[in-house]
Amino acid sequence: MQALVLEKKGELSLRDFAVATTLGPQDVRIKTHTVGICGSDVHYYTHGKIGHFVVREPMILGHEASGTVVETGSEVTNLTPGDRVCMEPGIPDFTSRASKLGIYNVDPAVRFWATPPIHGCLTPEVIHPAAFTYKLPDTVSFAEGAMVEPFAIGMQAALRARIQPGDIAVVTGAGPIGMMVALAALAGGCAKVIVADLAQPKLDIIGAYDGIETVNIRNRPAAEAVAEATDGWGADVVFECSGAAPAILGVDKLARPGGAVVLVGMPVEPVPVDIVGLQAKELRVETVFRYANVYDRAIALIASGKVDLKPLISDTLPFADSIAAFDRAVEARETDVKLQIVMPD
Amino acid sequence: MQALVLEKKGELSLRDFAVATTLGPQDVRIKTHTVGICGSDVHYYTHGKIGHFVVREPMILGHEASGTVVETGSEVTNLTPGDRVCMEPGIPDFTSRASKLGIYNVDPAVRFWATPPIHGCLTPEVIHPAAFTYKLPDTVSFAEGAMVEPFAIGMQAALRARIQPGDIAVVTGAGPIGMMVALAALAGGCAKVIVADLAQPKLDIIGAYDGIETVNIRNRPAAEAVAEATDGWGADVVFECSGAAPAILGVDKLARPGGAVVLVGMPVEPVPVDIVGLQAKELRVETVFRYANVYDRAIALIASGKVDLKPLISDTLPFADSIAAFDRAVEARETDVKLQIVMPD
Amino acid sequence: MQALVLEKKGELSLRDFAVATTLGPQDVRIKTHTVGICGSDVHYYTHGKIGHFVVREPMILGHEASGTVVETGSEVTNLTPGDRVCMEPGIPDFTSRASKLGIYNVDPAVRFWATPPIHGCLTPEVIHPAAFTYKLPDTVSFAEGAMVEPFAIGMQAALRARIQPGDIAVVTGAGPIGMMVALAALAGGCAKVIVADLAQPKLDIIGAYDGIETVNIRNRPAAEAVAEATDGWGADVVFECSGAAPAILGVDKLARPGGAVVLVGMPVEPVPVDIVGLQAKELRVETVFRYANVYDRAIALIASGKVDLKPLISDTLPFADSIAAFDRAVEARETDVKLQIVMPD
Amino acid sequence: MQALVLEKKGELSLRDFAVATTLGPQDVRIKTHTVGICGSDVHYYTHGKIGHFVVREPMILGHEASGTVVETGSEVTNLTPGDRVCMEPGIPDFTSRASKLGIYNVDPAVRFWATPPIHGCLTPEVIHPAAFTYKLPDTVSFAEGAMVEPFAIGMQAALRARIQPGDIAVVTGAGPIGMMVALAALAGGCAKVIVADLAQPKLDIIGAYDGIETVNIRNRPAAEAVAEATDGWGADVVFECSGAAPAILGVDKLARPGGAVVLVGMPVEPVPVDIVGLQAKELRVETVFRYANVYDRAIALIASGKVDLKPLISDTLPFADSIAAFDRAVEARETDVKLQIVMPD
Repeated sequence: MQALVLEKKGELSLRDFAVATTLGPQDVRIKTHTVGICGSDVHYYTHGKIGHFVVREPMILGHEASGTVVETGSEVTNLTPGDRVCMEPGIPDFTSRASKLGIYNVDPAVRFWATPPIHGCLTPEVIHPAAFTYKLPDTVSFAEGAMVEPFAIGMQAALRARIQPGDIAVVTGAGPIGMMVALAALAGGCAKVIVADLAQPKLDIIGAYDGIETVNIRNRPAAEAVAEATDGWGADVVFECSGAAPAILGVDKLARPGGAVVLVGMPVEPVPVDIVGLQAKELRVETVFRYANVYDRAIALIASGKVDLKPLISDTLPFADSIAAFDRAVEARETDVKLQIVMPD
Repeated sequence: MQALVLEKKGELSLRDFAVATTLGPQDVRIKTHTVGICGSDVHYYTHGKIGHFVVREPMILGHEASGTVVETGSEVTNLTPGDRVCMEPGIPDFTSRASKLGIYNVDPAVRFWATPPIHGCLTPEVIHPAAFTYKLPDTVSFAEGAMVEPFAIGMQAALRARIQPGDIAVVTGAGPIGMMVALAALAGGCAKVIVADLAQPKLDIIGAYDGIETVNIRNRPAAEAVAEATDGWGADVVFECSGAAPAILGVDKLARPGGAVVLVGMPVEPVPVDIVGLQAKELRVETVFRYANVYDRAIALIASGKVDLKPLISDTLPFADSIAAFDRAVEARETDVKLQIVMPD
Repeated sequence: MQALVLEKKGELSLRDFAVATTLGPQDVRIKTHTVGICGSDVHYYTHGKIGHFVVREPMILGHEASGTVVETGSEVTNLTPGDRVCMEPGIPDFTSRASKLGIYNVDPAVRFWATPPIHGCLTPEVIHPAAFTYKLPDTVSFAEGAMVEPFAIGMQAALRARIQPGDIAVVTGAGPIGMMVALAALAGGCAKVIVADLAQPKLDIIGAYDGIETVNIRNRPAAEAVAEATDGWGADVVFECSGAAPAILGVDKLARPGGAVVLVGMPVEPVPVDIVGLQAKELRVETVFRYANVYDRAIALIASGKVDLKPLISDTLPFADSIAAFDRAVEARETDVKLQIVMPD
Repeated sequence: MQALVLEKKGELSLRDFAVATTLGPQDVRIKTHTVGICGSDVHYYTHGKIGHFVVREPMILGHEASGTVVETGSEVTNLTPGDRVCMEPGIPDFTSRASKLGIYNVDPAVRFWATPPIHGCLTPEVIHPAAFTYKLPDTVSFAEGAMVEPFAIGMQAALRARIQPGDIAVVTGAGPIGMMVALAALAGGCAKVIVADLAQPKLDIIGAYDGIETVNIRNRPAAEAVAEATDGWGADVVFECSGAAPAILGVDKLARPGGAVVLVGMPVEPVPVDIVGLQAKELRVETVFRYANVYDRAIALIASGKVDLKPLISDTLPFADSIAAFDRAVEARETDVKLQIVMPD
């Protein structure tokens, strides 16, 4: 079977690659349709590792996928061949202590697509547990289905924030994840979301949504925009999505007394935090690691029309052009939010 | 000063009525503009009491109000004359045990407009604490401002539910409060809200909103509609807004395992509850009593356009026709959601 | 293998009984040591059913057990032969929607020991998933290990209550479960727990614990005792453990404004609830169904000495006298809290 | 009236000092009995400021106090002369936005005893709002009453942690506040609290309590002790009470996946935080600023005997020796937890 293989740092091949094909009793076999390119895929390509996850053997990339069920294991009851689906890519040990608690995303045993040494899904067929394979309603396209994974991170951030209806939120950092967070927060109950960044093209994309205001911090401090929008009280929730040290150091300035800060961005090294600043407003700081139990609700929001992710799909390329697609993703054009690859029929 | 006075059960007068006019240092004087008619106003008119609150002296009605600040007390800093505002009608003892906890709505000392023996606001001028007087943004009309109070109940229900982004909710009972709850739940993060009632005109009004589905329980059990919308899993949140015994007895059938039930409707007498049914799904049951700390967020949602209450204002009548307005409200036409009275200039 | 078999309603045998003996890769084989008798075991004996769970075939009783691991499946890593353990008796489908959420107790697929048609553990050897088998610290005896299951219900109630440090709680009903709840609430952060019942011997047993006050409602209304203990404010948490209609109707009288009610007792039929009474204090009502994720923490509390369950073990009988033990349990002596059966060496 | 006055940095006087003596309608006049010395009092003495709070005028010190009501304002109903009481020292604007939310501790308008320019209570008589004056049960001494304030910080930390019954917690830093936190966490539901420090005398004091284990990090890493106590899973809650940079950088190593970190210690400057480390376990980080709504529950725990603060009162000195008491506090002896001053009869 053909696959997009990261041979090693900096080297991609589109070639035949043998993977396990045994269908377990609780698994489904899925013909992949659309696969999005994620920043982590790109990072493995350019750096060969993320933290202590190092690419030591050729690995298939890709973990944002939709497709069609073609075969079901003997114990599968919730899916049948022909079902259009999307897949949650991190498989925990379902009987672990973390999984029993419902926080399977932090189970140390999770096997996550395209995180070494686990292969991803940029190949025409994958086997996946039925429990982590979700039916797409007719109104949700394959392209949208492949957006559920990145949107799930936004959903996780929105859930961890414990948004209350009518909250005002601010998002620092308008990268793809910042945008997902902004849309999840808005759909998740915020009255208004202010997005701050210094790249105007990104702000223009996300600012086109109703309910989202933008502030270009080249021109105006985010704290000033938040103060104006909140009569000086501060935002109920600050979603830090830039991972940038100055943004992290200043989160408390954006929040209201008793507000929440959700740390989504991932600074590579420890960064200075103004702990007394956080304490003076008694802020709650939440962190986010992937997601758990959000696929259903993400799909529900997309299906109902409350969340429209289509404007964030910047381009769609055929599987045959995967390497070119990755090279374009490496460019990190400010007008590219999400690039998707469509598998051959 | 003229006022709409409930002289006693069944007898209204529009007449001069002397009320206290001393402005405390933390108070504001407000020229009232629009006042909505609430079911409780009507109930005092038709029954002379609600529970142990009995009308023993003539009482001014009305508690859903917007207006304009005309004078501020010496210590008021957040408002100035000319500000367009709406008013939260239940004044607690701010230093009570409940108020210190932030749940001032359940402070036994609350003095609530048009709840005997406290006068309401159907009079051209009222004095109110600045802390319970909220500025209306330019984009929010006086009519909408007078809708904040009933919408606040919906907000309180949505807050108590602890909606998670993408929840699916069901509302049993499409009266004015059920509609407010449905809109608050939807704006507050639900992907979809299913409203169940047996009055088709009411369902038609609320069903016109995007994201709201209706089920006429004359034709189809609510449980069936919910099961279909949730693949048999059940609703994340059930908002019981009918106060009707059969609906209350069946709430567990609508909810998913581990879901929530919010009891908004108020049955006059104790009603049978299937406790084992609630336990078998380990449901959380929340109750609602008025509201606390929701005015800001209600106004934010209206101002941002996420909540449009204008379609629920069925008619607007001049203060001079107040008695006729109340008599129409007594009729309880199925196409009337909210009647409002506009004060003279 | 010998087993205590409920042949049908009213008929117990101690006889050989063949059960499955295949050890799955994630299972352990356990030599049972001590098994407590639960009210539900007794109810199946005397009534042949609980709700829609009907004994149609001979069934082994017992689900409160401790023992020693004698063999481990090939994939088991957390246990080794010789480990002293206790067992959580309700096995869910670990990949179900409820299990993924961490609320596996409400997974409709749960297979629970001694709930028809699933056999219990009153037999010398059982096979059980390693994930639901918990090591006992050296300081926790087998007898205490077999108390973890009933105590787990108390723990679940305490968790659902979301006790805040220094809360004052009241427990209505001093049966075995009420006692477990009282001790879990006390260890779980309450400053004081008031237990109300009309059986003085039961009150004497639970009242012997530090921090627990008792009120005999034959002599004094529970509401009066609670009012006195709380300066008229009410209890932070009311644990309703009697299942009795009058207690349920009056729960709101015991609670403070904004407090919580946890419904633990199970009335057979729907009972009248004063919904307006609950609303007037905006109470939160939680329900309890068995337990999830509490075994670790229950064991930790017992091991640390914060919870001493030994005084609640009223008598210990040999396996050979199981039927007599059950007949004594049927008597429901007011001085018997928990009877335990010890398996032969 | 005599008072202990901080004239300026480094200079204390015990001298006559005129303060306002007007009793408002909601105030009480209290004859002070016992006043504890807090680290912040000492810091103002030695440094003349804390952050942006600078001592610019002579200021009376002291904010940990108990005493006896001697006069009540005209509207006071909950207290009468002769009542033994303790006082919550930070008075908010009761009608502020934060106060309405129940988080009056983060109201920017709070006036806090002995925080410039507000005078403290080291003087024989003070006037205080009745709403922030709490009756002491007969079983709680004046000395214990003056311990409620520092214990309240421990309570706030325990509340913010949202301890679940049976949690295992670790406290880094065994200063007076770390000790208060450890006791509050233990009383608040933890099965066990591990306290880490490098000063053995402090560990000996707190380690004398049942349920508290200590680890001297000179000899053994805290992470190792926590791993051993939790089978490698990690602590449910980490209370960081040292304010020390290495402890803050390592908090994630002590916590379990999905656990909580409560930041109590206050590092003067921003310190490096390993955000990715926090995210990898999806930790929740809470901060603490003084306290709100904990006095009642702190007193209840002390009164019930669940919390015994008496061993932490290291010495008691007469008011006449106040300056000597402060000079001893400056020494920061490792065996001194709390020094208290007793006012003259």
